[in-house]
Amino acid sequence: MSKELVFGHQNPDTDAIVAAKAYSYLQNQLGYDTEAVALGQPNPETNFVLNYFDETTPRVIKTASNEVDSVMLVDHNEFQQSVSDIKDVKITHVVDHHRISNFQTELPLYYRAEPLGCCSTILVKMFDENKIEIPAQLAGLMLSAIISDTLLLKSPTTTDDDKIAVKTLAEIADIDYEKYGIEMLKAGTNVAAKSDQELIDSDAKSFTMGGKSVRIDQINVVDFDDIDKRQDDIKKAMSAEASDKGYDLFLVLVTNVLNSDSKLIAVGSSLDAVEKAFNEKFASDNTMPLPGVVSRKKQVVPPLTDALS
Amino acid sequence: MSKELVFGHQNPDTDAIVAAKAYSYLQNQLGYDTEAVALGQPNPETNFVLNYFDETTPRVIKTASNEVDSVMLVDHNEFQQSVSDIKDVKITHVVDHHRISNFQTELPLYYRAEPLGCCSTILVKMFDENKIEIPAQLAGLMLSAIISDTLLLKSPTTTDDDKIAVKTLAEIADIDYEKYGIEMLKAGTNVAAKSDQELIDSDAKSFTMGGKSVRIDQINVVDFDDIDKRQDDIKKAMSAEASDKGYDLFLVLVTNVLNSDSKLIAVGSSLDAVEKAFNEKFASDNTMPLPGVVSRKKQVVPPLTDALS
Repeated sequence: MSKELVFGHQNPDTDAIVAAKAYSYLQNQLGYDTEAVALGQPNPETNFVLNYFDETTPRVIKTASNEVDSVMLVDHNEFQQSVSDIKDVKITHVVDHHRISNFQTELPLYYRAEPLGCCSTILVKMFDENKIEIPAQLAGLMLSAIISDTLLLKSPTTTDDDKIAVKTLAEIADIDYEKYGIEMLKAGTNVAAKSDQELIDSDAKSFTMGGKSVRIDQINVVDFDDIDKRQDDIKKAMSAEASDKGYDLFLVLVTNVLNSDSKLIAVGSSLDAVEKAFNEKFASDNTMPLPGVVSRKKQVVPPLTDALS
Repeated sequence: MSKELVFGHQNPDTDAIVAAKAYSYLQNQLGYDTEAVALGQPNPETNFVLNYFDETTPRVIKTASNEVDSVMLVDHNEFQQSVSDIKDVKITHVVDHHRISNFQTELPLYYRAEPLGCCSTILVKMFDENKIEIPAQLAGLMLSAIISDTLLLKSPTTTDDDKIAVKTLAEIADIDYEKYGIEMLKAGTNVAAKSDQELIDSDAKSFTMGGKSVRIDQINVVDFDDIDKRQDDIKKAMSAEASDKGYDLFLVLVTNVLNSDSKLIAVGSSLDAVEKAFNEKFASDNTMPLPGVVSRKKQVVPPLTDALS
């Protein structure tokens, strides 16, 4: 059996990195020959997690077809979020917790999707189904991914399966997950250390909605002021990026991870559709409060897709 | 929880009908409220199976959105093979063993695909994972679906999982699967009882390949002569259907289920691409021998997609 690469989406977050490592470990236990890689450098939160559990950082790749014939995807499926030459390799496995869109294969494959809060939660179930034990360090990583994706089980994307997985993993990793979780989330919110360009890029994903090219970034903070005071510069960077890359609409969702509220910053056309999507008007500075909104996947993408279609 | 419909593809074969009944049973055991329905009348083979195990025939539906908001798909995912108003309902679950193509959702969902010989084999694994027992009658149906899709475990689509599932199900159903299987396959090959139109329609599926609309039907026989003597009339019916429905290419794969050989009958354009796909020339009557070919999914669709792209 020839070697396959396992990776999460571009601009990897903690789940994208961790799910690749966890799925690669599981598949190798089951007899495959895989290596977990990443489509970008880990963000500060993920670096905190990898350091905390003394785990290695995956190698970053730009293309896959120069190394392997086949790949396994985790935490994404839409081709525009995947490796640049995804159409030149065979996709044999996918594990994901997102909608399915802009994805197709020529041959049958293994595809496992569940509408859970975190891709790593699906993997916890798959370890159990295959009767493979999760090592303590890996349990720590997977626990971190679930905490990251669900904001400590407070996001509306959180399911009972996520809660059960966190308890299982906390026992295996022997960790107080609430105390550790707050420490980890704070480690990911150091926006002062990032340039405007890094802020609008580091967790951004591209979507096609009603024929429009839409870019949606999310920035986690512990205080909105950290972004408010840089808002003009951030909007300038967003405009330049939208013009450069041809985005019709660029949204930045600024999320306060401590109180689970967000604020939206918008640049581009179709602002009326955004207002319709959230039933809320933009202020004169093109920002909009979104109380209770923390999930791009569940609370931003679906209403926006509806409004733009 | 509101009721959901569960169904397989248009022109249902035994797996499409059986997988819908099996998945509906499993989901109802797990707390969902579902009904297995079908997108067409069962074929003679499936009727034989339903009679043999004294199981009811699913209700046939033309549209879904007039009854329910949400549906579960089995044994297919491509929208052109699904219910006519598939875009007007929410797809919450898919269990399938085909490639993924022309499929998308707005929201995350449960999607379980494995590249196995039969969708019902995946369901056997899911019953086990969920610790739900398969009743004897249902085991007989699922066994029949696997025998049908794998031609008694002889098709190249057959995997170890299919073989294990057949043994498990034969024990539960208390049946000699080889003896029963031959009887069942023969029951599905009575082509004399079918009109030309029925023959070219009953197991036909539509595909888009390289921008072309391709229709591929499969007819199981125990003797090629049964089709050879009607070949001119069948080609006339194929031409009329292609012209009426706008198919660029219409292929009928005639498969001898006893010796696992096939013969191809073609009508339409792009015949050179078909020759390229199988590295074989058409005879003057637009037929081509395909020794050892029995699987549309594994041995016809992939090389043809390549040749047309």
